[in-house]
Amino acid sequence: MKRGFGSDNHSGISPEVLEAIAAANVDHALAYGDDEYCERASRLFKQTFGEQASVYFVFNGTGANVLNIDAMCRSHHAVVCSDTAHIHVDECGAPQRIVGCKLLTVPTPDGKLTPELVKTQLHGFGFEHHSQPRAISIAQATELGTLYTLAEIKALADLAHSYGMYLHMDGARLANAAVALGCTFKEMTTDQGVDCLSFGGTKNGLLMGESAVVLNPALDVELKYRRKQMSQLCSKMRFMAVQFEAYLNGEQGTENGKCGVGEVRPLWWRNAEHSNRIAQMLYKEIQSVPEAKVMYPVQVNSVFVQLPRDVWTSLQKEYFFYDWDESANIVRWMCSFDTTEEDITNFIGALKRLL
Amino acid sequence: MKRGFGSDNHSGISPEVLEAIAAANVDHALAYGDDEYCERASRLFKQTFGEQASVYFVFNGTGANVLNIDAMCRSHHAVVCSDTAHIHVDECGAPQRIVGCKLLTVPTPDGKLTPELVKTQLHGFGFEHHSQPRAISIAQATELGTLYTLAEIKALADLAHSYGMYLHMDGARLANAAVALGCTFKEMTTDQGVDCLSFGGTKNGLLMGESAVVLNPALDVELKYRRKQMSQLCSKMRFMAVQFEAYLNGEQGTENGKCGVGEVRPLWWRNAEHSNRIAQMLYKEIQSVPEAKVMYPVQVNSVFVQLPRDVWTSLQKEYFFYDWDESANIVRWMCSFDTTEEDITNFIGALKRLL
Amino acid sequence: MKRGFGSDNHSGISPEVLEAIAAANVDHALAYGDDEYCERASRLFKQTFGEQASVYFVFNGTGANVLNIDAMCRSHHAVVCSDTAHIHVDECGAPQRIVGCKLLTVPTPDGKLTPELVKTQLHGFGFEHHSQPRAISIAQATELGTLYTLAEIKALADLAHSYGMYLHMDGARLANAAVALGCTFKEMTTDQGVDCLSFGGTKNGLLMGESAVVLNPALDVELKYRRKQMSQLCSKMRFMAVQFEAYLNGEQGTENGKCGVGEVRPLWWRNAEHSNRIAQMLYKEIQSVPEAKVMYPVQVNSVFVQLPRDVWTSLQKEYFFYDWDESANIVRWMCSFDTTEEDITNFIGALKRLL
Amino acid sequence: MKRGFGSDNHSGISPEVLEAIAAANVDHALAYGDDEYCERASRLFKQTFGEQASVYFVFNGTGANVLNIDAMCRSHHAVVCSDTAHIHVDECGAPQRIVGCKLLTVPTPDGKLTPELVKTQLHGFGFEHHSQPRAISIAQATELGTLYTLAEIKALADLAHSYGMYLHMDGARLANAAVALGCTFKEMTTDQGVDCLSFGGTKNGLLMGESAVVLNPALDVELKYRRKQMSQLCSKMRFMAVQFEAYLNGEQGTENGKCGVGEVRPLWWRNAEHSNRIAQMLYKEIQSVPEAKVMYPVQVNSVFVQLPRDVWTSLQKEYFFYDWDESANIVRWMCSFDTTEEDITNFIGALKRLL
Repeated sequence: MKRGFGSDNHSGISPEVLEAIAAANVDHALAYGDDEYCERASRLFKQTFGEQASVYFVFNGTGANVLNIDAMCRSHHAVVCSDTAHIHVDECGAPQRIVGCKLLTVPTPDGKLTPELVKTQLHGFGFEHHSQPRAISIAQATELGTLYTLAEIKALADLAHSYGMYLHMDGARLANAAVALGCTFKEMTTDQGVDCLSFGGTKNGLLMGESAVVLNPALDVELKYRRKQMSQLCSKMRFMAVQFEAYLNGEQGTENGKCGVGEVRPLWWRNAEHSNRIAQMLYKEIQSVPEAKVMYPVQVNSVFVQLPRDVWTSLQKEYFFYDWDESANIVRWMCSFDTTEEDITNFIGALKRLL
Repeated sequence: MKRGFGSDNHSGISPEVLEAIAAANVDHALAYGDDEYCERASRLFKQTFGEQASVYFVFNGTGANVLNIDAMCRSHHAVVCSDTAHIHVDECGAPQRIVGCKLLTVPTPDGKLTPELVKTQLHGFGFEHHSQPRAISIAQATELGTLYTLAEIKALADLAHSYGMYLHMDGARLANAAVALGCTFKEMTTDQGVDCLSFGGTKNGLLMGESAVVLNPALDVELKYRRKQMSQLCSKMRFMAVQFEAYLNGEQGTENGKCGVGEVRPLWWRNAEHSNRIAQMLYKEIQSVPEAKVMYPVQVNSVFVQLPRDVWTSLQKEYFFYDWDESANIVRWMCSFDTTEEDITNFIGALKRLL
Repeated sequence: MKRGFGSDNHSGISPEVLEAIAAANVDHALAYGDDEYCERASRLFKQTFGEQASVYFVFNGTGANVLNIDAMCRSHHAVVCSDTAHIHVDECGAPQRIVGCKLLTVPTPDGKLTPELVKTQLHGFGFEHHSQPRAISIAQATELGTLYTLAEIKALADLAHSYGMYLHMDGARLANAAVALGCTFKEMTTDQGVDCLSFGGTKNGLLMGESAVVLNPALDVELKYRRKQMSQLCSKMRFMAVQFEAYLNGEQGTENGKCGVGEVRPLWWRNAEHSNRIAQMLYKEIQSVPEAKVMYPVQVNSVFVQLPRDVWTSLQKEYFFYDWDESANIVRWMCSFDTTEEDITNFIGALKRLL
Repeated sequence: MKRGFGSDNHSGISPEVLEAIAAANVDHALAYGDDEYCERASRLFKQTFGEQASVYFVFNGTGANVLNIDAMCRSHHAVVCSDTAHIHVDECGAPQRIVGCKLLTVPTPDGKLTPELVKTQLHGFGFEHHSQPRAISIAQATELGTLYTLAEIKALADLAHSYGMYLHMDGARLANAAVALGCTFKEMTTDQGVDCLSFGGTKNGLLMGESAVVLNPALDVELKYRRKQMSQLCSKMRFMAVQFEAYLNGEQGTENGKCGVGEVRPLWWRNAEHSNRIAQMLYKEIQSVPEAKVMYPVQVNSVFVQLPRDVWTSLQKEYFFYDWDESANIVRWMCSFDTTEEDITNFIGALKRLL
């Protein structure tokens, strides 16, 4: 395939990750997570998110989201989310099938829930005809590339808790958010009251590795059975663990996931910083294209652009990227840890030629 | 971990597989299977199992089994299987949760169903109070290391089809079976009337790669949605495809999975032939141990042995392996593609010292 | 309880229905529907809805709706419905739990879907990340007491069919709709292309009796097992059948459910005509109350009224009725087959006293 | 239909029950159980089973069993039951579909579990590959018409509790058991440690009425939502409540369900005593038929008989009854509250004529 801006999971594997897999490919290890690699990775998650955190490695983001929803909800519960949420629009109804619960969706201007928006769904408590609201689910960064501030996260967590509900965060791109906000993973999650987190790595350089991180220990009930029963238990799990180890571990001084403590940053930071920076470069270049209108703040590694239709369909012949909203002529350009400055220069060149 | 005989998924990755992953780690590829690697692997499956075959890559064996059951059954159907079947005893009820169907289990002497055993469950058709028998599920090799002959497979397929039912084969160790029987994958499946197959690779040298292979095209209905919805769709799927390519492809003359055609055998054959051969060596050595009784024919890579309890609990301090039936003092010793002759010599030595 | 305007299922049983139950209470009858009463009732449904119709008696409206959705959809499908639909707001997520599918909800001004509104949800076909739209579900009458014209029903059926989708009608109050439109049940359903119907009787005088009527025979596949498995198969079903017989059967000339053919109308017509007429009386009386604003056209047996809050909370001390939208000060007054003119007079009197 | 011995749900409604329904058919009552009738019936259940008991009315036995299993288990749990259990053989897989759990079945000589039989399934605790045993389910009387003694019930409850498990009792014919054992409902359930009970009435004279009675308050968690979501919430519930009131209420002195306290026994006792007595009469008459072999102790209202096949197929032309085990030539004759002595005399006469 031509290089393109389709998705951050169109890129491959960070060399460090592949090396970690190769290094672990010696002798035998117990399957299903009972090995020293997993124990080490599990400790690293505790260092990163707090001692109360427990991690369940799963195969993909849908698996992480569904396991977390399953930790919070039974089938008569409902999850409040944005109507652009991945769990609503991109998982073919996995939460409905596997948990059996309902999603209550709210339109948002920018992919972000607010307490006011959530409250429109907080009624019918105690009324048995109504799916009981039990969780709020947000994505950090959102599917539109926007970010919640720490205060905004806390406000949603506080709202959830005041109703006896939980806050779930879909962190498929949590690394990009942390770099953009200049904070640690823990500051963005545990410290603000997030109850459970889908923590991704695949979009930021892992081969295959996602995780459900349970930050509220009250939710950590019999989840190992739930993961197994939903077909998300990996056999040779050491090879998933070492990917996360390579991803989270800083070469010095970063035992709590803090970026910028030592001189050498962890892999997650380097990769995310790169894709964010490249997206900013792309964003800056687009400023000089009057026919292109950037739709949302460019805070992480995606740029949503409104363009004349014939332009972007022509451009798609040279570069792969997705239509986002065909009716509104909006496309999504996603930058990755391996997108180069040259990629941007060439892409903008091609765009300008077409205009 | 000490080297041991716990499971064939305690071993690591075949070097050829890791090399294939590294070789595919260039540029971008479309996610979720729309890439040239997946297309190539898919063609290879058609060459291996017949042009009518379609393959759905999934993450693990449970995913493959459940997707296949889902292809055959709705929730009011039942699957007849052995009471030692992996889908019954080792998947934490995944078929029940995800498909909602019932398993009708039959005790067997050696892990193998027969038409007579299956027929004990074939009643109640048309009676709405009774889960309708819809599929027969067998494992090749079985969980007890025994094998169905081609004729036995055909007899079960014929029985299934005469009732409007389907035959599923759990082929987590199909390579070991093919080597033992000296036949191709196709001869063991498509040619005998198997309707769908869980085709594994992880236990025989892959990093992570299993697949649901639909051999009966009538069952290939909307499965891509079903796979996605059960959280089994991989994003960077090229890295799963190339593992299977490395696994199935012979260096010469083996385009249909036939072993022994050319001078160089495919990886699956070399790995399975090795683990089978090592198991035979182990089996032969045990003959000289009068206190050890081998429980089932050793046809593939596992040896089930009855031993005095104090002996095997002591032996477990040096080598990892599982109790199979604690009440009957039976243990399972599983050989792998990376088990060495020296492993066997040392192990038998340790055993003899303990007696 | 005081008499009130809470719901048409707050009223009791039509005397004719109770008499029919008593008359059937002789000797033995096969259970689960294999009896002459059920056969007779089933024939009556065919006379009413067309020979292609098949009826599945169930216990309640949720059962009928879920069985119908189950007939149309598998778990990876989606149903497009109004965001006021009973299946969305009043069934505690039963479709999600039992079918596992998704509901795609659309805001409407008056509870009615239009082709334009539905089309906003008709995208993502063939894209495995997206729950596949498979059915449109409408209620006749709607939950807001509004009605679809025959042409509007046909337009939605045509739209559904043009996409390979189905049209479901929730007919919990179909009798009220038929009386209001002056048409037969068949004209409102089969003749317009409705594929399956939840046909209710409980809100119009039955003790307990609802039904899933499959009008499109292609959907009538293994539904008897589906009904049983979702716990909706009645044992002494004769007593459900005779209720529908008493309900549908005209004393003369009404064998096809046509109202007004003979001199004596069927029970469903008499009961629905009464509750519609009483609702009109209530509506007319409210015209003279300037503080009360009727929110939707009064087409069947419900009246939605905006009233000063202190007035309706005081009124609720004398008469039971539900808040509909507390934030907008809207209440729902529902008339029933046993609501009397005196009830209306007294109620309006009480209201006026409070103003 | 000819009168017969097919099932106790082939009979109709006890006159007292129909009268109670008619008597409640006045004015309005809140729907879904929020009415004085339901409150009264609920109190009666507490008097009958103990103050800690809470009752959930449902439509049928499958609904009661599934709601109870749902109260005890999540999908990764398993229920140990006899392989003749109604939940296993006669509910079309409802527990699997609705709860998603597994049933672990045990062959029994007489339909009765024993601690020894149950223990064969009590392993794999803590092992995530294994559905976790969570409940034992027994039927009183069993599907074979046999009875557990109070001590046997207690032994199973004690076993369950010692493993952190629960004991469920399927009491579709609990009245027959209580009469046979000469004890109260409470003595048979609460007092022996039963955690939840499916308490039936339909087979003993109700029109339609079953219930899930939660005896262990720790299990009474959010069940009202679970009932609603599984489509088992009745709208005009007063008419279900008054059936149970007529059923449970003694005319004097029987406020705790004790039979024989006053001079007038409750309806459940009179009906069950009659059907048990008639079954004994049938049993006694069969003694004089040398070709007929009674298979199980006749303890309640069913008689299982082995007969020459041509005899029973001829007899079925005159009387309806079910083959129980065709291969063994065993039929089931079920007596009901409305089976008369004349029915028995005529039936035995017909049988003797055929021999």
